[in-house]
Amino acid sequence: MGRFVVLTDTVLRGLGQVMFQNNSYAGLLFLAGIAANSLLFAAAALVGSITATLTALALGVDRALVRAGMFGFNGTLVAIALLYFLAPVALTWACVILASACSTLLMAALLAAFKAWKLPALTAPFVFTSLVFFLSAARFGRLEPTGQLPTAGLPVKAAVEGVVTGGTVGEGLLTGIGQVFFQGSTISGALFVVGLLVSSRHAASAALAGSLAGLLVAWGMGAAEPAIRAGAFGFNSVLTAIALARVFLAPGAASTVYALLGAIVTPFVAAACGAALEPLGLPVMTLPFVLTTWVFLLASRGFSRIDAAS
Amino acid sequence: MGRFVVLTDTVLRGLGQVMFQNNSYAGLLFLAGIAANSLLFAAAALVGSITATLTALALGVDRALVRAGMFGFNGTLVAIALLYFLAPVALTWACVILASACSTLLMAALLAAFKAWKLPALTAPFVFTSLVFFLSAARFGRLEPTGQLPTAGLPVKAAVEGVVTGGTVGEGLLTGIGQVFFQGSTISGALFVVGLLVSSRHAASAALAGSLAGLLVAWGMGAAEPAIRAGAFGFNSVLTAIALARVFLAPGAASTVYALLGAIVTPFVAAACGAALEPLGLPVMTLPFVLTTWVFLLASRGFSRIDAAS
Amino acid sequence: MGRFVVLTDTVLRGLGQVMFQNNSYAGLLFLAGIAANSLLFAAAALVGSITATLTALALGVDRALVRAGMFGFNGTLVAIALLYFLAPVALTWACVILASACSTLLMAALLAAFKAWKLPALTAPFVFTSLVFFLSAARFGRLEPTGQLPTAGLPVKAAVEGVVTGGTVGEGLLTGIGQVFFQGSTISGALFVVGLLVSSRHAASAALAGSLAGLLVAWGMGAAEPAIRAGAFGFNSVLTAIALARVFLAPGAASTVYALLGAIVTPFVAAACGAALEPLGLPVMTLPFVLTTWVFLLASRGFSRIDAAS
Repeated sequence: MGRFVVLTDTVLRGLGQVMFQNNSYAGLLFLAGIAANSLLFAAAALVGSITATLTALALGVDRALVRAGMFGFNGTLVAIALLYFLAPVALTWACVILASACSTLLMAALLAAFKAWKLPALTAPFVFTSLVFFLSAARFGRLEPTGQLPTAGLPVKAAVEGVVTGGTVGEGLLTGIGQVFFQGSTISGALFVVGLLVSSRHAASAALAGSLAGLLVAWGMGAAEPAIRAGAFGFNSVLTAIALARVFLAPGAASTVYALLGAIVTPFVAAACGAALEPLGLPVMTLPFVLTTWVFLLASRGFSRIDAAS
Repeated sequence: MGRFVVLTDTVLRGLGQVMFQNNSYAGLLFLAGIAANSLLFAAAALVGSITATLTALALGVDRALVRAGMFGFNGTLVAIALLYFLAPVALTWACVILASACSTLLMAALLAAFKAWKLPALTAPFVFTSLVFFLSAARFGRLEPTGQLPTAGLPVKAAVEGVVTGGTVGEGLLTGIGQVFFQGSTISGALFVVGLLVSSRHAASAALAGSLAGLLVAWGMGAAEPAIRAGAFGFNSVLTAIALARVFLAPGAASTVYALLGAIVTPFVAAACGAALEPLGLPVMTLPFVLTTWVFLLASRGFSRIDAAS
Repeated sequence: MGRFVVLTDTVLRGLGQVMFQNNSYAGLLFLAGIAANSLLFAAAALVGSITATLTALALGVDRALVRAGMFGFNGTLVAIALLYFLAPVALTWACVILASACSTLLMAALLAAFKAWKLPALTAPFVFTSLVFFLSAARFGRLEPTGQLPTAGLPVKAAVEGVVTGGTVGEGLLTGIGQVFFQGSTISGALFVVGLLVSSRHAASAALAGSLAGLLVAWGMGAAEPAIRAGAFGFNSVLTAIALARVFLAPGAASTVYALLGAIVTPFVAAACGAALEPLGLPVMTLPFVLTTWVFLLASRGFSRIDAAS
């Protein structure tokens, strides 16, 4: 393949890896799903994956890792996040480039730090890089928030709010998958499911089951209806479910139950992260998925019933 | 022994391990101490230890660890904590079961994470699991706090408040031990000391010395009298003192001095954790003990004067 | 050499190690730079280095490490920090002694924790020890802040404030170096540069380049002019630049570019730490340098273009 084709394929795999798919067609469909909702975010997703990938190549990262898209997906998410929460002016685009490059540094750092535990970095580089840039906007006068960041304020007890209907559940099921890429759109969610189907039927089922589990737990615990409908309690469970059921543990009955438990615990961690970060005006992004999956993977080493993926 | 007897013995050792005693009689006396103050908390302590132990067995944890009560004590504390801070309705009891099971996952995860350092998990699984559930109550409308959680608010400089008398010291000495299980009662504290005496005379002395050290430092630094009387600055020092003087380091003059230093530093860490967590409406629980003991144990590897327990 | 001469030399190396110089003359010039601005802080710097060093000797730390000043520099910084933010009464001096001793414990703990990664502790022991004492002042009525701690309050979007002139840049370049020891004085900064020159011409250039990079980035992003003039965005970049260009990586073109990238990223991390810690009334100190340098060093293991120092 020519250089340009290889790079394009790598960049698309970077998009695919956001949901653990080392598959450029999945990546292309994810890109289509984003574009269906917003061309701005689709552009950001590409710029982020390209920047993070080129940074990795320039610094001399192991080619095989780069080729599998492992140095693209955090850049993609960082770029979308920055444009979701900061106004799309020239300085923000400059920050998008810098932050996507930083995501490659954090990825390399976490790979080195976690080597002894054989623990994956997941989307932690995206989360930490984004938090740094959002927080710094409070001190740097020229970074303009879009108004999507939560308002700073101390945690207040939420009341049970709104009535959950069949529509809430149906919509939330798909937006929960759409929110993996910050797209609270059922069409985006549906296209992401198609992207998963192209790559792995099992991953698509895990994603749907995860979204449903997150949604039902949040409903049962009395989360606000608009948040449930928008998929706010789904996307982290989606990622936890795919990671535990299909990627890092040996697939089977035991890991399916274990993944389900993970998808059930994730909304509690999501609610907790929300209450901890929102006073600072920060979104939780995929931090709940990252924390829950790290704990479940580390714990599995001590459980003879749960095996690591071979 | 029959199955039921073994399980009962294991569950009681789980209670005993809250103060590092692999001894079911100590566990039984700790349970009596809790029951003397509140039957609700005694029931919670049993449910937590049983749930965490059974979860460990179901997932296939090493039997010897489970048998020593190592997968019971965090469940016990999580269960008491949830019922201390959340209203005892059916949903809270369901959360108690889920959270106790989660404490087993966190325990297994920390054992795997800390293996290379030979560092104990201590009560970190209890603390982190409880923090997640308390924080999530701010987003989940159906979890009702009892009013025991600190009110959210930014840290305000505390004034020197109240006059410390002999009564404060005498009461605080025992409540400081009672608070290890959230029981601010002198009778509970006294029964816990008896439980320690049954298992280890030295552990009982360390507990009393730790409680006194924590109390005196807090008094000297100008902590509020009601907090001192209630044992708020004692229980973390109790645990630090037992851990460093009797459990993880070779007993002797050097480790006794080192443990005393630990018991003196703990109230500073406790005050700091309080100021950091209380703005979010969160209690510190045994986080100060965990952090201080981790630092002192890790540091001891570089000190030729302080030896690890054989 | 006599015992006293050896101890004096060790204590001065402790001061020198604040900017990575295992050189007692550099330490002496750093002390002169502090004394030029404040005799109180010069006394604190000495007391801190002496206490931390003697604690290390008493506990039996490896002599070679102590002799190189590795157990002095965190004590020096802790002592200055406590007197900068807490009123210089007798109780504060007692806390200075206790905190300097604690910095030795944290140093030993981090050395043990980071051994597997060959990662340096940097000034993390100073930062964490100081944060504990500042936070505890909110609960301990007898610790009196000086008014230098930030006022507790939720993060508020900063406006672009003041006009940056040539004077701002010239002053900020030197105060940025002075602030490494909490001295917002151009004379202190100049003397620190002289101290670096005595020990390493390259370290002095890295310090000046780092200060300039931090200042220019903060200016470009719209930080407040008084903060830029006072060196608030310089000192962390100074330390990152020296660490990455001269100390932990093989000097050369690649590491110079890498260090420059580190110096550019540091002000973002500094702004983020400020927004995260200031609501609790806490200063960031050198936390941004520590976090950035840890990430850049860990990441370098995965980059074939960046080599570790031999």
